[in-house]
Amino acid sequence: MIGKLITNIKKTQAPIVVGLDPMLGFVPEYIRKAVIREQGETLEAAGEIIYRFNEGIVEAVSDLIPAVKPQIAMYEQFGIPGLIAFKRTVDLCRAKGLVVIGDVKRGDIGSTSAAYATAHLGKIKIGDTEIAPFDEDFATVNPYLGSDGVNPFLDVCRANDRGIFVLVKTSNPSSGEFQDKESDGKPMYEIVGEKVNEWAESCMDASEEACGYSEVGAVVGATYPEMGKRLRTIMPKSYILVPGYGAQGGKGKDLVHFFNDDGLGAIVNSSRGIIAAWKQEKYASYGETGYADAAREAVLDMKADIAEALG
Amino acid sequence: MIGKLITNIKKTQAPIVVGLDPMLGFVPEYIRKAVIREQGETLEAAGEIIYRFNEGIVEAVSDLIPAVKPQIAMYEQFGIPGLIAFKRTVDLCRAKGLVVIGDVKRGDIGSTSAAYATAHLGKIKIGDTEIAPFDEDFATVNPYLGSDGVNPFLDVCRANDRGIFVLVKTSNPSSGEFQDKESDGKPMYEIVGEKVNEWAESCMDASEEACGYSEVGAVVGATYPEMGKRLRTIMPKSYILVPGYGAQGGKGKDLVHFFNDDGLGAIVNSSRGIIAAWKQEKYASYGETGYADAAREAVLDMKADIAEALG
Repeated sequence: MIGKLITNIKKTQAPIVVGLDPMLGFVPEYIRKAVIREQGETLEAAGEIIYRFNEGIVEAVSDLIPAVKPQIAMYEQFGIPGLIAFKRTVDLCRAKGLVVIGDVKRGDIGSTSAAYATAHLGKIKIGDTEIAPFDEDFATVNPYLGSDGVNPFLDVCRANDRGIFVLVKTSNPSSGEFQDKESDGKPMYEIVGEKVNEWAESCMDASEEACGYSEVGAVVGATYPEMGKRLRTIMPKSYILVPGYGAQGGKGKDLVHFFNDDGLGAIVNSSRGIIAAWKQEKYASYGETGYADAAREAVLDMKADIAEALG
Repeated sequence: MIGKLITNIKKTQAPIVVGLDPMLGFVPEYIRKAVIREQGETLEAAGEIIYRFNEGIVEAVSDLIPAVKPQIAMYEQFGIPGLIAFKRTVDLCRAKGLVVIGDVKRGDIGSTSAAYATAHLGKIKIGDTEIAPFDEDFATVNPYLGSDGVNPFLDVCRANDRGIFVLVKTSNPSSGEFQDKESDGKPMYEIVGEKVNEWAESCMDASEEACGYSEVGAVVGATYPEMGKRLRTIMPKSYILVPGYGAQGGKGKDLVHFFNDDGLGAIVNSSRGIIAAWKQEKYASYGETGYADAAREAVLDMKADIAEALG
């Protein structure tokens, strides 16, 4: 599946992913009002609101980008109807040819991790029938439980041509509380990074399009460029998913170290910087009915910023 | 909410929680066949199968136990219909007066962690209406992202009288890969434990029933009793949720160190040891139609084992 992601990146000339993390506050009032008029102040209405909002964004930007990253928490907060909107969003984006990275940060042990992997990347057998429950292309995985938590994901990735991004160094201010603690002279994020490299080598995408990259990638925040530089060398076969650009403070120039010399190896996420662009002063002229066009303009600006930084 | 859990534990004289982690293989064939006959080999059928199975178990054991712990992965693997079964199970158990610990192991940062907390323990506002999406009493939380990931849960716990259990030392064989790494002479699980103690002190349940315990508990596996002994002293105000008893190898005698001198402070989970008891030789005489009675017998045996161990 990393081969498909790389193909999409080359085609669009854009190592970027749009985070579809809709909060109700990002959605223009005319959409919220219209749906609530039909369905009342219900979870069902909330699910429909965020799906319609996503639909507009995806229509406007799908030709410019290789991938989307829906953050499942933003859907789960609306209960079952929210998760229905998540599933509809996954299906919509895959039908458009976009690679879908489910930002689910799941992780457990043994049969439980296997169940999460099946839910998001695999197929479940009911009687003699196999069904893909959520059917994303990639999922993000939390490594705190060790190999027992990750190996079941690798099995499902191998069987279904899917991939994962393992949390290594997250973009938030307090990520260092545990991730930076040093053991035998190495910070925890490096210890996790070395393990990611092992997992990556055991789960390669053999297709030509994959250019020697693995189905196992890593999450490393744009807000920690020096650590990104070090982690880039520790995990040479892993794509790095880079959150923290834009709203969290990461700049284009911070990103250069996340890429390999082949110009590949990283994909940069922006969520609210794109989907809520219409609320920024810079894009205010689009107005609320132009929210999707504002998102398109913000994607073009992000592409230019990153292209300039990468020289 | 820890006050309610302690009240339930005292009433039932049982510091135990039944893990409602249904796999299709645990469900007697007569249930599976009946539902598939009605609904075909669909995700909807799978959801209905595991809900009916749970219903039987809950009917049979609810008077004996204080709490249940549904593992959401086992529902998520059946997609939306599975999550509907999860929600129905939460509602059924709360209606019976059981405390529901959602074993969701969520964790992210900032507004995303807030969304997970809202989904499971809080209320979401849609227009002027507030709705509780999943409405569990407790949730399990992954600490890898640090305080930024946990604080939003604390806010929601304080506002809604709910609680969390933070993963500290998990029960699986590879948990030591990262959790046991030493930094300045302290293993990571102790560093996390100290942080849990801080979070616990900032989020106390002031009710008399809480006996001085906090809304912030910890997960420590029964398979590591010596580490449990040490963690017990580091987090005196935290209830410890102890997985790994039974199927994973933890014995009654291993549990004594997880409790405080007041006889409180720990709750021991068993999942397949209870819900799939009918498949064990020991309870085989119940047959498949007696699966719920076998679960009841297994609960009584577990209570006796733990009571003996605690003297």
